[in-house]
Amino acid sequence: MAVSAHRSANGARVVCVAPNPSIDRTYDIDRLIPGGIHRPARARAVAGGKGINVARAAHALGADVVAVPLLRGHAGQWLADELAGHGIAVRAGWAPGETRTCISIHDPMTDGLTEFYESGDPIPADAWSAFEALVGEVLEGGAGVMTISGSLPTGAGDDALLGLCRVARQAGVPVHLDAHGSGLLAALAERPSILKLNAAEAAEIAQLVDPAGDGQPRDPSAAVEALVTFADRAVVVTRGREGAVVAGPDGRWRVGPVPVEGRYPVGSGDAFLAGLATALAAGDELDRALRLATGAGAANALVPGAGELDPAEARRIADTVAVTPV
Amino acid sequence: MAVSAHRSANGARVVCVAPNPSIDRTYDIDRLIPGGIHRPARARAVAGGKGINVARAAHALGADVVAVPLLRGHAGQWLADELAGHGIAVRAGWAPGETRTCISIHDPMTDGLTEFYESGDPIPADAWSAFEALVGEVLEGGAGVMTISGSLPTGAGDDALLGLCRVARQAGVPVHLDAHGSGLLAALAERPSILKLNAAEAAEIAQLVDPAGDGQPRDPSAAVEALVTFADRAVVVTRGREGAVVAGPDGRWRVGPVPVEGRYPVGSGDAFLAGLATALAAGDELDRALRLATGAGAANALVPGAGELDPAEARRIADTVAVTPV
Repeated sequence: MAVSAHRSANGARVVCVAPNPSIDRTYDIDRLIPGGIHRPARARAVAGGKGINVARAAHALGADVVAVPLLRGHAGQWLADELAGHGIAVRAGWAPGETRTCISIHDPMTDGLTEFYESGDPIPADAWSAFEALVGEVLEGGAGVMTISGSLPTGAGDDALLGLCRVARQAGVPVHLDAHGSGLLAALAERPSILKLNAAEAAEIAQLVDPAGDGQPRDPSAAVEALVTFADRAVVVTRGREGAVVAGPDGRWRVGPVPVEGRYPVGSGDAFLAGLATALAAGDELDRALRLATGAGAANALVPGAGELDPAEARRIADTVAVTPV
Repeated sequence: MAVSAHRSANGARVVCVAPNPSIDRTYDIDRLIPGGIHRPARARAVAGGKGINVARAAHALGADVVAVPLLRGHAGQWLADELAGHGIAVRAGWAPGETRTCISIHDPMTDGLTEFYESGDPIPADAWSAFEALVGEVLEGGAGVMTISGSLPTGAGDDALLGLCRVARQAGVPVHLDAHGSGLLAALAERPSILKLNAAEAAEIAQLVDPAGDGQPRDPSAAVEALVTFADRAVVVTRGREGAVVAGPDGRWRVGPVPVEGRYPVGSGDAFLAGLATALAAGDELDRALRLATGAGAANALVPGAGELDPAEARRIADTVAVTPV
């Protein structure tokens, strides 16, 4: 059967779904002066958004990546060209309007970022169903893992993530999900293979699925316990430098701490997911995949750019990461 | 002769050259917090840059406008579509790379704007000469006035404005020039028909062409005297609410004060130039053109958007503006 042949040929492929990508512009200025006019000494634009960051990092790690972004207009075309220019395969869905822009102002006085995230104009209702159908088509071409990361476009319903997870289940492809809010809550009904959250997101969603009596935010270990039944293989809650806590049907693990600290943590969570997906799609065991994930997140923080990393550095760090059953 | 026939048919056309346009994005936020993450409640994108603003305002005033922007890449294509969508004829030149973006953050706490102007990547040397040739072609189709407004792209030489003025002279089309810096200084050798500057630009260029002994910035009246030999028809120095001072071979005038004060002065200088060009291209006398210019600048300030105005309001205000020989 043709489909099976494709599937076995592309069985280690990582399909990275980016429902709400953006053009990320970063400006270097002397000093941010509210009310002032600034002429950035340096302006950079990159294809951005969490799903794109995951695709970039997984590609850097050597995975056979297909990025599936929902793009819009001329800005979307720029983004598709940008990814293709970096050698990343793109199967884009399209919606009317323009892909949003996000701005980061880098102020060297504080080394801080002042950020502006556009929400984007609402997409029409039929744009999302067409995107779901596209994702299904891509998965029929074969995939080892499908990642879904980041926010949904305005106008996509609360069941939009759930729909993507169903498409993946029909195709028999495990989903690695990194999302938040009401869309994530609905998607838990489909039990993704991996549920990857940061500590704040985990506390929020744990409170929604299992309200704690005192209403206090749970710590990562407690959150992971509240969420463990909602993932097939593992719930992973990242805690920055401290590493991650992980729970699944086969046990509980503590990962890390992260052995190196970089200056550029933006995108490290996405690189972590890319490491996990790359390793699991290649058939690695979960503990080995968690090491590569941690190495990729740490390597991301060593160089500028979200989802940019040196793969040799990521693997070197991965070899030093502790994964401890608890 | 075909060219003459075209020229007489399009003799009232206003050709608006935009050497360095931009996509202008404006964000409405609750409060600007340096180091913070902002999710603008409203984000708008418009075709921007001074030359584009002039084209928009002249089109609103009823002129037969052709915008001639130097565009780049996908962002440039968006800009061309945006202008065409507003019914403005576009003859675009193209350079490699991407049209720049400028960001304005609107903070309602102070009603102030915090702005970020990208300089854009340098254009290659041959892109400018191709643009000059395009401008010549457009002018051969007939024009009553050619405006040139705003900055030059990085990589265009100091003689870039001079080259455009020469092309216009060869086509017999009067130039209205609103520029600054070393590019303007070089262009003065071609004596534009109208030299339109604000008070700060006039003081700067007056000092360059005729250094004052004490080095103090000249007031607008003194600057206009220092510059009067560098324009065929008039040097016009705008002074915001106070109006303008004007000098030419036929006399000296004081224009204004502006009878109304609007909340949106961004682009009023461009609307002023649009009013001047629209009236002079239609064959009006200079005093009448200065009234429409002042009315257009004031009407621009009454509504949001740079180069947006209500033409009836502009003409109503124009009728009340005093133009006084001095």
